[in-house]
Amino acid sequence: MQVYQAPLKELRFMFEIFGYDKVAGIEAFKDYDLDTAMALLEQTANFGKSRLLPLNKTADKQGLRWDPATGAVTTPDGFKELFAELRAQGFLGVTGPVAYGGGGAPETLGTAIGEIAASCNKSFAMCPGLTRGLIDALVAHGSDTQKTTFLPPLIDGSWTGTMCLTEPQCGTDLGLIRTKAVPFQDRYKLSGTKIWITFGEHDLADNIVHLVLARLPDAPAGIKGISCFVVPKKKQDGTLNGVKCTGLEHKMGIHASPTCVMELEESEGFMIGEEHRGMKVMFTMMNAARLHVGIEAIAGAEIAYQTAFAFAKDRRQGRSLDPSKNDPDHSADNIMVHADVRRMLLDQKCTNEALRGLAVWAAIQIDLANHHADAKVREEAEDLAALLTPIVKSYSTERGTQNISDAMQVCGGAGYTQDWNIEQYYRDTRITMIYEGTNHIQALDLVGRKLPANGGRSVRVFQEKVTGLIREGKNDPRLAEFTEPLKQLSKLLTEVTMELAGKGMEDREHVDAVASKYLNLFALCALTYVWALQVKASLGKSEAFYATKLKTARYFVKQMLPEAESLAAVIRSGKDHMMAFTVEEFETA
Amino acid sequence: MQVYQAPLKELRFMFEIFGYDKVAGIEAFKDYDLDTAMALLEQTANFGKSRLLPLNKTADKQGLRWDPATGAVTTPDGFKELFAELRAQGFLGVTGPVAYGGGGAPETLGTAIGEIAASCNKSFAMCPGLTRGLIDALVAHGSDTQKTTFLPPLIDGSWTGTMCLTEPQCGTDLGLIRTKAVPFQDRYKLSGTKIWITFGEHDLADNIVHLVLARLPDAPAGIKGISCFVVPKKKQDGTLNGVKCTGLEHKMGIHASPTCVMELEESEGFMIGEEHRGMKVMFTMMNAARLHVGIEAIAGAEIAYQTAFAFAKDRRQGRSLDPSKNDPDHSADNIMVHADVRRMLLDQKCTNEALRGLAVWAAIQIDLANHHADAKVREEAEDLAALLTPIVKSYSTERGTQNISDAMQVCGGAGYTQDWNIEQYYRDTRITMIYEGTNHIQALDLVGRKLPANGGRSVRVFQEKVTGLIREGKNDPRLAEFTEPLKQLSKLLTEVTMELAGKGMEDREHVDAVASKYLNLFALCALTYVWALQVKASLGKSEAFYATKLKTARYFVKQMLPEAESLAAVIRSGKDHMMAFTVEEFETA
Repeated sequence: MQVYQAPLKELRFMFEIFGYDKVAGIEAFKDYDLDTAMALLEQTANFGKSRLLPLNKTADKQGLRWDPATGAVTTPDGFKELFAELRAQGFLGVTGPVAYGGGGAPETLGTAIGEIAASCNKSFAMCPGLTRGLIDALVAHGSDTQKTTFLPPLIDGSWTGTMCLTEPQCGTDLGLIRTKAVPFQDRYKLSGTKIWITFGEHDLADNIVHLVLARLPDAPAGIKGISCFVVPKKKQDGTLNGVKCTGLEHKMGIHASPTCVMELEESEGFMIGEEHRGMKVMFTMMNAARLHVGIEAIAGAEIAYQTAFAFAKDRRQGRSLDPSKNDPDHSADNIMVHADVRRMLLDQKCTNEALRGLAVWAAIQIDLANHHADAKVREEAEDLAALLTPIVKSYSTERGTQNISDAMQVCGGAGYTQDWNIEQYYRDTRITMIYEGTNHIQALDLVGRKLPANGGRSVRVFQEKVTGLIREGKNDPRLAEFTEPLKQLSKLLTEVTMELAGKGMEDREHVDAVASKYLNLFALCALTYVWALQVKASLGKSEAFYATKLKTARYFVKQMLPEAESLAAVIRSGKDHMMAFTVEEFETA
Repeated sequence: MQVYQAPLKELRFMFEIFGYDKVAGIEAFKDYDLDTAMALLEQTANFGKSRLLPLNKTADKQGLRWDPATGAVTTPDGFKELFAELRAQGFLGVTGPVAYGGGGAPETLGTAIGEIAASCNKSFAMCPGLTRGLIDALVAHGSDTQKTTFLPPLIDGSWTGTMCLTEPQCGTDLGLIRTKAVPFQDRYKLSGTKIWITFGEHDLADNIVHLVLARLPDAPAGIKGISCFVVPKKKQDGTLNGVKCTGLEHKMGIHASPTCVMELEESEGFMIGEEHRGMKVMFTMMNAARLHVGIEAIAGAEIAYQTAFAFAKDRRQGRSLDPSKNDPDHSADNIMVHADVRRMLLDQKCTNEALRGLAVWAAIQIDLANHHADAKVREEAEDLAALLTPIVKSYSTERGTQNISDAMQVCGGAGYTQDWNIEQYYRDTRITMIYEGTNHIQALDLVGRKLPANGGRSVRVFQEKVTGLIREGKNDPRLAEFTEPLKQLSKLLTEVTMELAGKGMEDREHVDAVASKYLNLFALCALTYVWALQVKASLGKSEAFYATKLKTARYFVKQMLPEAESLAAVIRSGKDHMMAFTVEEFETA
């Protein structure tokens, strides 16, 4: 059973409360006012439901074929036609720069389109998703020649892009990269092995452009000796460039997304950005890419939630414990009468909605940071985007994956079968906790980089927003119901942050030990802010949508916030109980 | 990579601290003293590693074949030979009664064997597991003729058994069963459709005996009109009995365990137990069956943990944040230096070990309840088994599944591939939260049945054990480190229990709303007791095993116990925020 309605009203509401008008007010985005943006999303939703969703399960079942002789990868039935259709409709380059044939839409819209696409067919959506990342890197760091060579075909969908970072000996620690780049004429020849390369090889487009991290012969060791290159599958004369897919990974999910082992053998490439500064190119795309991974998890959690609710409102089992709700026409009541079914659904609803809000907030900041005319606005937006990105990436993927498991639980045995697809959503989404920097790497990014940056400016910007809303709550008891818990949580977070900052000076291992829990505490505070903001925007409005928002906010505060105290206690317990073990003591006896 | 060492030392330790000697002291079990029991487990471990484990992944890949014409189900390559070998070695009937050819071993040993088998090959192990359930039902409720007819071939493995409860319209709510049983000569003719029938059809044995819940023509509606029958696939004269597998479910995991749709068409069956009292037969097996499901999850979590640790101790990535731990011979340190890797592993270790302890405690009570000479001992054991069973089932499966996800996270991208098998352990284990009564059904069983039974006698027995240990802690500060937190948690649990008992009188829906969280709070308290008991048994012992126990107990208290306060807060927030929503308000806007 395939159930999906794009959350268009939710998206519009989030766009409104997080100030999409400021994005639309930027000259470059003047063609994308809120109504136009929503019309584009509606079009995306229709395409997603009618074309992407029907292929999601068949593609998972069929999987990919890889030819060891040629390295060719065949995608599941229908993917080629689907990609051609997207190309013909101009969907692929919607956020690409107008100068190179793109639609010039803001990132905020790109991420909302990304959510809908990932809900409908995550495996397929990864291909244009990665291409967008490469486009961003070229726009920010490519030379004019590189831009005119690569951008138009990437934007019109004739070619697609990849990111080649990981190697067998290194994932999290990119300082260990061994792929070599040797100067050759006006370019370089690259040789090495890259793994986990999403859509590294496929049959959807004429050419594939790889963004490759590698070392020059004279490069210093570690992360400061890495340069960045674009390496096309085919050279300009159409001949092959020594880039070959030598195998596919067999994975828990995303069975229709090829995860390739790629061998480069003297493959010609062009340097992007400066020598030994390849990580800088990667970091440009990092916020958008990590945000997008968080959104993939929200997307999976959304379609799983809708599926579970569709199941629940149709299923009869047992009797309501409130006799007044017993349905005399049937031998059992609908399971929506059961408190625990509601609990499982509402846990999902109240976190999915707030996480989407947090992601929209971050996306808007990315647009403002990149394009707003006012330097002060850009700085604040940059600070907020930097702070929110690891939180959205880590907490959305952790909670989103949990939410899909809860959706499965609502359906009982049916949820475990392939009939309801939730098991596929789980399998497809589970990777989001790992790729684009594992969730713990996000936590280290938050505590080690984002908190201390510019003397803690990011956190101050965040706290000012929170404090401002708390102040507004003082004048309205209806808002105070939510700003009071926000105030307490914000106070707790500030205390824990100060303790951690003090500790971090002398003992970084302590910070490592508690970083993941700290990120979750921060996320709870951020989500409470998102809920209080939604309540503020809903007060006094009569439409049912807003009344439901109030109830959901209340549910969030009662059911989710108590975890904050326990997180704080665990954070405060530090590292000694972890570090006391010898390695041998982990062995099962 | 297949990694597995049976946790024999852990099992022996748990047997010792939870009083296996009392079981071995029962006349019927005199051949099973601790050393003999451990020898049998070692034999099981060797067989599991050498024969069950190598087929686990290949069988998952290959899956099952079903022939629509005949209804025949073909199991994966090697299963037939494996089953024949188990039969030849007498492994299948080890806990069956001696009078009918069984080994007469205690249930405690059966559950430990079950853990090892489920770690090595969960799909395969489900077949003998269900057969044991049928044997138990026949032993307790079968007539002499039924026993002599069915028990010997079930015990020697010529035949296997199933449980046929669920129908398309009913799973949780068995009162809705429609399968009909019409009297015919000295037996009945049964017709109806049963779903989710594990090993309902296969090619491992000559005959399959189904335990079927059905209604007599004059049966009252609901749960009090259900009778229980044994229905063989083949009649005594060898002809088919109208029982046909009409389809297999396609599931997230346990791909090598056939989940069958079974059609009964005037199939001849024999009533077990009394008319309309079929649920009583089911309840006899319930404790053992539910305990076994909890153990399946511990089994999955154990092998996943060992796999993650094997990965981690071999993987180098990044540098220790403590410079004194940097390995100068390598460009990166082993990831066991990282606090977060330790955290993820220790979260698993400290819960897996305590959950196994809880399961052993419950298993021992089942043996004592069924076989001890002293009625007083039987009563106490019965009370404890009844109380602990839903907790072991629900919390082991919830936490165990989470632990497998954590094990995957330790391995990063590798954990998501099929190379390390953790993804299979996750898929195979996820069903344990659903079958044999969903986890919420366990929570309702705890609060609605087990707590109030006999005026709360079960909880009093539990609390006496806890209080006794707390008292011992007063004399030994080394123990007090653990009994003090136990005391606080036990106090909190008592308060919450009293509040809930008061509330439950007037508002059962309130209890439903908080039951799942309450079960988790109870589980935390029970696991803290298990840890304090392990500490008591470890104090003053010099062997490394016991020193590690102390560290793990400390980790549990610091990292896991803080959740108790947040659980209590959520429980105390009640139901109103869940029940306030109309059904329409769950719709995504």
